[in-house]
Amino acid sequence: MTTCSPTQPLPMADVPHWDFATDVAVVGFGAAGACAAIEAAGAGAKVMLFERSSGSGGASALSGGEIYIGGGTDAQIAAGFEDTVADFTAYLKLAGGPCADEAKCELYGAEALAHYQWLKDQGVPYRGNYLPGKVIEPTDDSTLIWSGSEAATPFRNQAKPAPRGHVIAHMGWGGGRPLVDILERRARDLGAEIHVDARAVALITDGGRVAGLVVRIDNQDRYVRASRGVVLATGGFVFNDAMRRKYCPDSFRVHSPIGDKDDGIGIELGASVGGDPIHMDQFFTTCPWTIPADQAHGVFVNVAGARFINEDCYHGRVSRCAVDQPGGKVYLLLDSAHFSQPLDLAGITIAGTGDTWAEVEGELGMPAGTLSATMAVYNSHARHGHDPLFDKQAPMLVPLDQAPFVALELNFETSYFSFFTLGGLKTTTSGEVLTRAGLPIPGLYAAGRCTSGLPAWGHGYSSGMSLADCTFFGRQAGRAAAYA
Amino acid sequence: MTTCSPTQPLPMADVPHWDFATDVAVVGFGAAGACAAIEAAGAGAKVMLFERSSGSGGASALSGGEIYIGGGTDAQIAAGFEDTVADFTAYLKLAGGPCADEAKCELYGAEALAHYQWLKDQGVPYRGNYLPGKVIEPTDDSTLIWSGSEAATPFRNQAKPAPRGHVIAHMGWGGGRPLVDILERRARDLGAEIHVDARAVALITDGGRVAGLVVRIDNQDRYVRASRGVVLATGGFVFNDAMRRKYCPDSFRVHSPIGDKDDGIGIELGASVGGDPIHMDQFFTTCPWTIPADQAHGVFVNVAGARFINEDCYHGRVSRCAVDQPGGKVYLLLDSAHFSQPLDLAGITIAGTGDTWAEVEGELGMPAGTLSATMAVYNSHARHGHDPLFDKQAPMLVPLDQAPFVALELNFETSYFSFFTLGGLKTTTSGEVLTRAGLPIPGLYAAGRCTSGLPAWGHGYSSGMSLADCTFFGRQAGRAAAYA
Repeated sequence: MTTCSPTQPLPMADVPHWDFATDVAVVGFGAAGACAAIEAAGAGAKVMLFERSSGSGGASALSGGEIYIGGGTDAQIAAGFEDTVADFTAYLKLAGGPCADEAKCELYGAEALAHYQWLKDQGVPYRGNYLPGKVIEPTDDSTLIWSGSEAATPFRNQAKPAPRGHVIAHMGWGGGRPLVDILERRARDLGAEIHVDARAVALITDGGRVAGLVVRIDNQDRYVRASRGVVLATGGFVFNDAMRRKYCPDSFRVHSPIGDKDDGIGIELGASVGGDPIHMDQFFTTCPWTIPADQAHGVFVNVAGARFINEDCYHGRVSRCAVDQPGGKVYLLLDSAHFSQPLDLAGITIAGTGDTWAEVEGELGMPAGTLSATMAVYNSHARHGHDPLFDKQAPMLVPLDQAPFVALELNFETSYFSFFTLGGLKTTTSGEVLTRAGLPIPGLYAAGRCTSGLPAWGHGYSSGMSLADCTFFGRQAGRAAAYA
Repeated sequence: MTTCSPTQPLPMADVPHWDFATDVAVVGFGAAGACAAIEAAGAGAKVMLFERSSGSGGASALSGGEIYIGGGTDAQIAAGFEDTVADFTAYLKLAGGPCADEAKCELYGAEALAHYQWLKDQGVPYRGNYLPGKVIEPTDDSTLIWSGSEAATPFRNQAKPAPRGHVIAHMGWGGGRPLVDILERRARDLGAEIHVDARAVALITDGGRVAGLVVRIDNQDRYVRASRGVVLATGGFVFNDAMRRKYCPDSFRVHSPIGDKDDGIGIELGASVGGDPIHMDQFFTTCPWTIPADQAHGVFVNVAGARFINEDCYHGRVSRCAVDQPGGKVYLLLDSAHFSQPLDLAGITIAGTGDTWAEVEGELGMPAGTLSATMAVYNSHARHGHDPLFDKQAPMLVPLDQAPFVALELNFETSYFSFFTLGGLKTTTSGEVLTRAGLPIPGLYAAGRCTSGLPAWGHGYSSGMSLADCTFFGRQAGRAAAYA
């Protein structure tokens, strides 16, 4: 029998027999796969979903269940925010930076309101209220939060700010799990056939077309005929060190991967038939430095005592820029009016204290006139509501002049810098996987973090962008496959 | 007739006839292709070389003809430098940073002395003398120059410094042209058959093996049978905007590509048969800020008035780190003792002057206490021979305290930041092109900037590393193909 592997598709002529036959085969049961299955089944296709774990979830279930939605939702309007498709779309493009997929930004910008309604129609509950402040995840059942850098420079100057993080109604952290549960129920209700403990190991090709896949179940290769298409929704490659070494080596600066078996299998399967992985060097990272909330008023400096960003940006953007700094660590400076004990899990330590910033500078071993000069400039302008260097805004812009002072250390090795990869297969807005020449591969679709999508650029990521991408473009991929 | 394209190999069964038959076909006639042809022909293989331009050269001929060689060359010894294979190899790995190919660093580290002899044996002349100072290219016929960050922190702490840039004896700039001329003559003498104005458009496959290629000559497709192998040596992708957008979008920060038709064709051809392009986001860039030589004593600050590097690093490393800074520009600060008019071609302008650093700061529109504080700290320590922030070393470490003062602007849009891409096909030390699964593709070899090689990391590049890689690994690829 021909051996097959993720990097070597199996020609259909070598398939010994078919174990399963379906119209659409979806690989991976996080939010992207679930939404693909729902739409494909809803379109009347026979759908089978294969998941290597013992149940649904993926990285989606580890998230806060927050989805980035704008353009004037009920929650935005109720809270008094005017948001437009134009501003929302502009922000999506800014967040994508040099990696932005303009067509995906425009389609999602135009369709997000309808997508929000679709999510509600699937049964995802939203209370509809607004929770102000810097929030990573609401711990009550609130809906709308600021989840990006919308109100921070340079974003605020190019797209009118509005909060756009929409969180499933859920008490406590971790709304991702109930979100996937609802999507799973919906997929099952629509007749999608779910196979768990079923790991995809190769695609099956019929000439230039993807005709199915090989899945390993109980250590046996099973052959799945997918007459309309295969949808890859297997997540990123944060747990594949060899892939990270080749394509995303800067991610080794941080040490707390988030994911659920995200080993890049979908990217490898897609590439095995000519798919085009792009922006593979991009990764998201964040350290929860805005908890407790007082700490969000802090000032970051690098080991040379220099600021490097307006700290009112999204915590992930600040964290990603922090990881670019030399010396393996950065310091978060706070005064006694704004210090609280950091979260234990964050691994953030106290590196220096003092009754003056000069004392803190000395405790950190920095030369006199570095950190202390930085803070003198910062405070003198913050007192007047200005940050001439980085344009940090109120209410985060406050003078830090109440002794004693403290420098917290965010260490890239030992602090909790969670991260996941953003690069993946290049796809159309319909989820078709493209070759390097820009041609769709017949029969192959993909969505979520095995693709490069809305959250394309680590420095621009905003919370809810990956789930927005997974749910919305998962739907497109499922529908395109069903109608193929 | 079947159409073929760089991204779609032509099955041998669809080849209508053979126009050429050879043992080894080399694609591209820069230094890598020339060295591959020399070694393949020297090993007794029939060799044909196909070049899309009207003559040899490629990006190699646009260079200074400098090759990074260490471990104790005659020129190093004559100048009193002790260099060892261990230190040289350690530096190669540091220069590769997170992208280093350890096996290539180790092989080249061990073989560079023999490679230097081989270059001489081909007729490349070296005068053997040492030219001290910060030199981009010698304008006399000197041999040995400092061409990297060897004596700068952190490199100096992990590998004993020595100069390793070895330049062909040649008066004036541009030793790359005569270097390629010598290699061309040698290839012709050994019987390599040269076809110019012959553009590679597709590979030809025989099952899993590369069996030849299609070249376009006089607008006709010509079919080349290469019974032992095809060697791709076509350079990077600096002139392919679509590839840069997908794989190296940060390179759009700078605007002066260096190359000769480097459109990524070799990377596409390799990928079309399963080759694995890696580190595609990496690029080299430099702005000639160390000319005139006095300017090498300057201090760089970003738009926030903060230093970001020890300025005694290689000019390209400083430039690459500069391009990471926000605000689209950086400033090079000089005092009257060290200022000379910048090179016209560099596009470096005077952005501010003053009798004190505070005045310069004001002219640049920076808040009081930023740049002036930076320079106060710098000068107070430089007077005692220290740079506690970045560990810049003498002789570049000098106080800048002789009024008047000047800030030169290096603008990423308008200054001359030349650049080229570093990402490419993953190859073995023998030049075999590897698949994503890490298996060699039978019949396919590659060298130079269509591969990821010694100069893998933009932040660690040192002058002469690309030509070292092209010439040495070009040789390995040619020999491996000949003996296949």
